[in-house]
Amino acid sequence: MKSLLIKEMYRNTEKFINQSVTISGWIRTLRNSKAFGFIEVNDGSFFKNIQVVFDDTLQNFNEISKLPISSSIIVEGKLEATPNAKQPFEIKATKIEVEGLSSTEYPLQKKRHSFEYLRTIAHLRPRSNAFSAVFRVRSLAAYAIHKFFQDRGFVYVHTPIITGSDAEGAGDMFRVTTLDLLNTPKTDDGEIDFSKDFFGKETNLTVSGQLEGEAYALAFRNIYTFGPTFRAENSNTTRHAAEFWMIEPEIAFADLKDDMELAEDMLKYIIRYVMENAPEEMEFFNSFVDKGLIERLENIVNSDFETITYTEAVDILEKVNDKFDYPVEWGLDLQTEHERYLTEEVFKKPVFVTDYPKDIKAFYMRINDDNKTVAAMDLLVPGIGEIIGGSQREERLDVLEARIKEMGMNLEDYWWYLDLRKYGGTKHAGFGLGFERAIMYMTGMSNIRDVIPFPRTVKSAEF
Amino acid sequence: MKSLLIKEMYRNTEKFINQSVTISGWIRTLRNSKAFGFIEVNDGSFFKNIQVVFDDTLQNFNEISKLPISSSIIVEGKLEATPNAKQPFEIKATKIEVEGLSSTEYPLQKKRHSFEYLRTIAHLRPRSNAFSAVFRVRSLAAYAIHKFFQDRGFVYVHTPIITGSDAEGAGDMFRVTTLDLLNTPKTDDGEIDFSKDFFGKETNLTVSGQLEGEAYALAFRNIYTFGPTFRAENSNTTRHAAEFWMIEPEIAFADLKDDMELAEDMLKYIIRYVMENAPEEMEFFNSFVDKGLIERLENIVNSDFETITYTEAVDILEKVNDKFDYPVEWGLDLQTEHERYLTEEVFKKPVFVTDYPKDIKAFYMRINDDNKTVAAMDLLVPGIGEIIGGSQREERLDVLEARIKEMGMNLEDYWWYLDLRKYGGTKHAGFGLGFERAIMYMTGMSNIRDVIPFPRTVKSAEF
Repeated sequence: MKSLLIKEMYRNTEKFINQSVTISGWIRTLRNSKAFGFIEVNDGSFFKNIQVVFDDTLQNFNEISKLPISSSIIVEGKLEATPNAKQPFEIKATKIEVEGLSSTEYPLQKKRHSFEYLRTIAHLRPRSNAFSAVFRVRSLAAYAIHKFFQDRGFVYVHTPIITGSDAEGAGDMFRVTTLDLLNTPKTDDGEIDFSKDFFGKETNLTVSGQLEGEAYALAFRNIYTFGPTFRAENSNTTRHAAEFWMIEPEIAFADLKDDMELAEDMLKYIIRYVMENAPEEMEFFNSFVDKGLIERLENIVNSDFETITYTEAVDILEKVNDKFDYPVEWGLDLQTEHERYLTEEVFKKPVFVTDYPKDIKAFYMRINDDNKTVAAMDLLVPGIGEIIGGSQREERLDVLEARIKEMGMNLEDYWWYLDLRKYGGTKHAGFGLGFERAIMYMTGMSNIRDVIPFPRTVKSAEF
Repeated sequence: MKSLLIKEMYRNTEKFINQSVTISGWIRTLRNSKAFGFIEVNDGSFFKNIQVVFDDTLQNFNEISKLPISSSIIVEGKLEATPNAKQPFEIKATKIEVEGLSSTEYPLQKKRHSFEYLRTIAHLRPRSNAFSAVFRVRSLAAYAIHKFFQDRGFVYVHTPIITGSDAEGAGDMFRVTTLDLLNTPKTDDGEIDFSKDFFGKETNLTVSGQLEGEAYALAFRNIYTFGPTFRAENSNTTRHAAEFWMIEPEIAFADLKDDMELAEDMLKYIIRYVMENAPEEMEFFNSFVDKGLIERLENIVNSDFETITYTEAVDILEKVNDKFDYPVEWGLDLQTEHERYLTEEVFKKPVFVTDYPKDIKAFYMRINDDNKTVAAMDLLVPGIGEIIGGSQREERLDVLEARIKEMGMNLEDYWWYLDLRKYGGTKHAGFGLGFERAIMYMTGMSNIRDVIPFPRTVKSAEF
């Protein structure tokens, strides 16, 4: 008989109550006395367990009574309502079969473990309550992102992971090579001869798919990327990983205002989707990880985001500069402490800060008429600060060329990016959302290592 | 006024006919005479263009008449039905504004270009009919995969891209490093000192997320991965890319039969989804790229797949060995010519071939009772051969350990993979689908470089 999923029992209880059912799953807890016992079984389909009651009418009662935690079993029995108990129903077992006996050394015993310890057993931690909740939410959030964009007709683009261009220019990159490191080929002037490498040139792991995304937006109008990106930054913090996933939509015939509207709609959509589709998990986070989480998320979903310019933000912040470790001054980038003050203390809701000084922003952002600021936006949210960064892109060929030269970069490296302006460019805009940061935000988890299945960080690439 | 999307006009024509509309898009063709002209505009939202009619009542008639192909424009006018024309409707322009003037050197003029040439302008080729169709289908197929699994409660897992383990053992890998190649640190015995590298150890790009996927299947029961994978194979063929995307579902409490059922359901679902959601694109492929494509796909969707064992397949093939470049013999792997003969000539529909000799398959596949074969399956489809490969995994700790040793691999490298058998293992199974191969199959495109936005192959990593 095919196993019924525990999720089905919880979501369609009426259909199965008083019926014979078969389930299969892993033992989370087992208590027994001389003649009967209780097993909490989790089958992976649902956050909650189901309670299985068994007694000594089972022919293998003794074997079952002694099963170690995490053993996998197949249970046949009747699903019975338990109106006076904590759980809504339980299974009275008529047969329990052992599918896989666990060792008694199973490291995830019932007592609570620290997140630090659980990172060392990343292959087992999704069996714990906290991580089963985190990684189901991660899956649902990823799907919500796809659904949001696909329902609006956006085209999903797989931009390249291995990049041969220096054009992205955003921080430290990982080299990708098949050269023999003990015997690297050299050119006559003593440099590495990358013409001998796999791709015939220097290659790295991408830090962003934006530039390629723009090429596709100028064909499909509305596109998004969703893929892994990499930073070889030597930052051992709770917010940095060397490998993380990013979402980068790009929209043509659109300006900064359209971009902000899209960002607001998207963020609200993801949060709503996760709250509706993982209520048990969100309840868990709210109770055990981050009290007040659900209220904060509901506040986001129900508020109209605020918009102020960078210049206005600096005016506000300068008045309270004594509160900050880093005083604010026009021309400097905002720190997390400033961002959080704006969104948490001043506006008490998400805030777009727009029109940053051009000197602290990337070359591709559209210069405003004042020639001092660019049409950029950062979305700040309570509890975290910046969660999204975007801009209108410079569509004017001459302005873009001048800016590339001004920044000391090579025009030739950008030949195809400039082509996009030569051959029928349009106003266009886009933004980037760091997926892990969004998951941390929605779950209250405070270390990025705890929202990535097998995290890669400085000096750590286990599993 | 916000632009109406061309897709909307085609899908909900009644709503917009005889209405004033504004559209924005790129000029695909422009014909004009002294007093009027016709522009085919594509706005990226839809495969088809819309015809815009303009005449010399436009104040900028002369400017518009001379616009180069690919210029972007914003058009206001009335949508009128054209019952006697090829196209169902057109816009009578009352105003045309130039958003971005294209250079007359635009390389994608109306004449047909070879796919080879278009690869050199990969940033512009999605503006052509063929590639707009390919990459919209790619996007829809990706979404269909997510939707298929999410609707069934599968958890989407991001397995790591950078891997510190040698455990996958599937072919040539790309090294990932931040070491200075001109000055690599050495250990005392003259080897590269990887403890100085970013991750403190040797790291490569993943070739498969399966092993990590298994860890998650033994927590969430049903999971899937969908991410980039890499092979540093020096194969310059129409079917090999160094970077490609893979889908790898993994299901617990499941055997090979469940695995085949899942593969069949999934493949049919994706094909159906794409045919329903991209009918114009599929019609294009059927007419211009691969005549007979739609019939072949409909045949797949409507047939029950066949299942035979490898041994039966060899029996069938040996009888016609004179047809093949490589004669068939029990114990050798099947070649594409054999696979295609089975699916195209013998069964004329998709065929699962199961229970391959263990010596030609991977260490993790479950040994059958005959101790000669493993519970593996390959799905062969007409026109292409193998499209999916999968297996039931060896869940018996002792058997798996023996097999790892027998193959000369290191038990310690697999400590966590073996843990999955120690702590409540279950029957489980999974398969891999190469995403690009599926796209080639559904579009009839015959070169993998033409289904990847910016392909990475031997000696080529442009854009």
